[in-house]
Amino acid sequence: MSKELSVNHLLGIEPLSAEDIHLILDTAKNFKEVINRPIKKVPSLRDITVANLFFENSTRTKLSFELAEKRLSADVINFSASGSSVKKGETLIDTVNNVLAMKVDMVVMRHPNPGAPVFLSKNVDTCVINAGDGTHEHPTQALLDSFSIQQKLGTVAGKKVVIVGDILHSRVALSNIYCLKKLGAEVMVCGPKTLIPKHIHELGVEVSTNLDDAIAWCDVANMLRIQLERQKDKYFPSLREYSNMFGLTKERLDRIGKPITVMHPGPINRGVEITSDVADSDSSIILEQVENGVAVRMAVLYLLASKIKLKSE
Amino acid sequence: MSKELSVNHLLGIEPLSAEDIHLILDTAKNFKEVINRPIKKVPSLRDITVANLFFENSTRTKLSFELAEKRLSADVINFSASGSSVKKGETLIDTVNNVLAMKVDMVVMRHPNPGAPVFLSKNVDTCVINAGDGTHEHPTQALLDSFSIQQKLGTVAGKKVVIVGDILHSRVALSNIYCLKKLGAEVMVCGPKTLIPKHIHELGVEVSTNLDDAIAWCDVANMLRIQLERQKDKYFPSLREYSNMFGLTKERLDRIGKPITVMHPGPINRGVEITSDVADSDSSIILEQVENGVAVRMAVLYLLASKIKLKSE
Amino acid sequence: MSKELSVNHLLGIEPLSAEDIHLILDTAKNFKEVINRPIKKVPSLRDITVANLFFENSTRTKLSFELAEKRLSADVINFSASGSSVKKGETLIDTVNNVLAMKVDMVVMRHPNPGAPVFLSKNVDTCVINAGDGTHEHPTQALLDSFSIQQKLGTVAGKKVVIVGDILHSRVALSNIYCLKKLGAEVMVCGPKTLIPKHIHELGVEVSTNLDDAIAWCDVANMLRIQLERQKDKYFPSLREYSNMFGLTKERLDRIGKPITVMHPGPINRGVEITSDVADSDSSIILEQVENGVAVRMAVLYLLASKIKLKSE
Repeated sequence: MSKELSVNHLLGIEPLSAEDIHLILDTAKNFKEVINRPIKKVPSLRDITVANLFFENSTRTKLSFELAEKRLSADVINFSASGSSVKKGETLIDTVNNVLAMKVDMVVMRHPNPGAPVFLSKNVDTCVINAGDGTHEHPTQALLDSFSIQQKLGTVAGKKVVIVGDILHSRVALSNIYCLKKLGAEVMVCGPKTLIPKHIHELGVEVSTNLDDAIAWCDVANMLRIQLERQKDKYFPSLREYSNMFGLTKERLDRIGKPITVMHPGPINRGVEITSDVADSDSSIILEQVENGVAVRMAVLYLLASKIKLKSE
Repeated sequence: MSKELSVNHLLGIEPLSAEDIHLILDTAKNFKEVINRPIKKVPSLRDITVANLFFENSTRTKLSFELAEKRLSADVINFSASGSSVKKGETLIDTVNNVLAMKVDMVVMRHPNPGAPVFLSKNVDTCVINAGDGTHEHPTQALLDSFSIQQKLGTVAGKKVVIVGDILHSRVALSNIYCLKKLGAEVMVCGPKTLIPKHIHELGVEVSTNLDDAIAWCDVANMLRIQLERQKDKYFPSLREYSNMFGLTKERLDRIGKPITVMHPGPINRGVEITSDVADSDSSIILEQVENGVAVRMAVLYLLASKIKLKSE
Repeated sequence: MSKELSVNHLLGIEPLSAEDIHLILDTAKNFKEVINRPIKKVPSLRDITVANLFFENSTRTKLSFELAEKRLSADVINFSASGSSVKKGETLIDTVNNVLAMKVDMVVMRHPNPGAPVFLSKNVDTCVINAGDGTHEHPTQALLDSFSIQQKLGTVAGKKVVIVGDILHSRVALSNIYCLKKLGAEVMVCGPKTLIPKHIHELGVEVSTNLDDAIAWCDVANMLRIQLERQKDKYFPSLREYSNMFGLTKERLDRIGKPITVMHPGPINRGVEITSDVADSDSSIILEQVENGVAVRMAVLYLLASKIKLKSE
């Protein structure tokens, strides 16, 4: 296996090879050991400055990246869209070039527009990590999800994973599909027909609109968060309707008569896509996902930083 | 005296023993020397990550905790309710569990709901420090107030302390009453009758509705901040009425013909609960309180962190 | 040349001597080398705590100061007006005294009121650095602008510099005029007649209302940002009118038949005060200005911190 990523940025899972993903997950395994030691810091990114540019609100992803950066001993600067000159009408490229001119080495960016990180990586001279771009990709979420499956079940290859929810608008779903397929899992998506993209089968996934069938089939159920603000959309079922049809309850799990692993990217709408007795049960690895998020982000930062260092030598 | 706190959290002053309080104040004395040295940092909390979770605005308390943490060499992450997933409807427990899953060791929390830190300490597995919970307690403020009296007058035991203002809604008043009584002070509360709880004498305090009588009696007057936003409440006097009856002025102080020590938790409404000539006079130890706040918070963090380390050994 | 500044604060360029400015620019030159090394940090401000008090929004100035402080190994605390007790009606002096009582050594302040830093320096006992005060001064911007001219053209003395835009309301213009004059440059201001102060010639500058004449005359054109929010003012031309008369375009530059250096303090309104082909051309040193900003601010912090250390010895 290669010891180096084939890419210079993490723009999405789509551009990664299976080798890249395995390298990230193997590296994350080492970093998970690090953050469970009494001394949680390593000096790997000393003298690297990372800017977290969040043009969209995010608590846990930002916190997770920030902790990953600090545990690698990077210098961290945070930049949020609110209170920034972005409001003054500055272009994205100008903003980022200004940050880079201050001798920042890596950029972690969340942006509401799909493709903003790709656009940026082509127009500015820095390493870009996509922390979520609109409805496009959220690659570190998919990597930590696959890492969590690997940690729980030993491997991702051959496992049956169903992703449940609003597939149409979910960057988490899309990144997960790419990642799971590249790692050799079987993937199904499940949700209301109106919320499943028409050509989704082209990605090599099964489709179901029946949650009971889906969980009976799977080893792992990844329950997406329902964006409550989408309730206004006409193609969206009511919350009650949604939770009746696609909410994961203990009754549903008991009925299938076999254990499955339950995941959720958080934050949970308890009682909507998942009930509390399921979220807090032994089947759930939701908090492990959060813990693994820091390790996976350390791995991504570490592997991409080595490429910068190589380039400048 | 014990070298260890009897508690694993700082949820309020009520659960502390007098020995606990003395241990904190003695430790604070050492840290006050540290922060007045040219080199203000000690490595005590190296490899401890502290999360400041502020679900309510606070400048000085947050800044004071943050400085205390940094001077103990802790890793610090800040989380404010605005811009967070709390808005997305996540429960408090989920939010905190997620923060903890990222391997955070201690949580400092301010929350508008009385009892939120107690609730949290029973439901999540971490050390919780209450930085103010609604109208309930604000323990580090009371500790720094008693520490400031001790620094100024040599001891708290036997001193006469009057707390002036809106006693009914004040977490600072309640925590101060517990702390001062446990340390052996005599305590009086003073304010408009409508703003003094009916059963306050059960806490062993005197009650006065006349500021001149109160300051003639006391060694120390702790002037609470009037919450200007409470002006709308019908049981509240007008600002002018309040400052006429309960505002501390130089004339009032001169009239009693003896020196007293004047305190205020800040931020001051100059000309309302206290005039500028009093706030800036030699009687006032208001800025010493702020300085002592950092030392007292270092002591609390240090003593609670030792208990975590003991537990994990 | 003196090895020490003649001032204890950086309140503006007006109080500085030419020797002070040269000392800052020479020191910045050293720090520019530092931040271009693989190891960008120096321990100069270890054990110095700097508070960034921003009572007005600012992305790039705040980020630039924060990076400068961190690269000098200072402890940094950030304080923004929103979410602070300033809203609760506390006075500026109280706020700052409270911050200082926490043993903060230096204050970097941006404030909407002209003169706020001067007022503060007279009333509190700390080193104050003005990061922009209303329409008064923005000294570090002027210093970085002169430093950038020096880096590009070898020297500032004798160079012809035109400042273009809303001279009347610009702290960048005023600080630049002081700085350039003290360094021996010839200075012209150019803009709509309504936006040029009547007595500006008393500062020893030329005045032009014709951009073509101005750029034909100059070696360097510093294009100020148009504050779009000023459009409502009746003495303000329309945006289209402004950009027609005072926008720097490639056509205009080509017409004068000699190379000039183009500057802009950012953020740019592309197509208003400057077109993209000019902003991104070889004549432009806009991104160098941003890079130099960190080095110049390191120099200012370093030189003022040495004075604190001397004082306390």
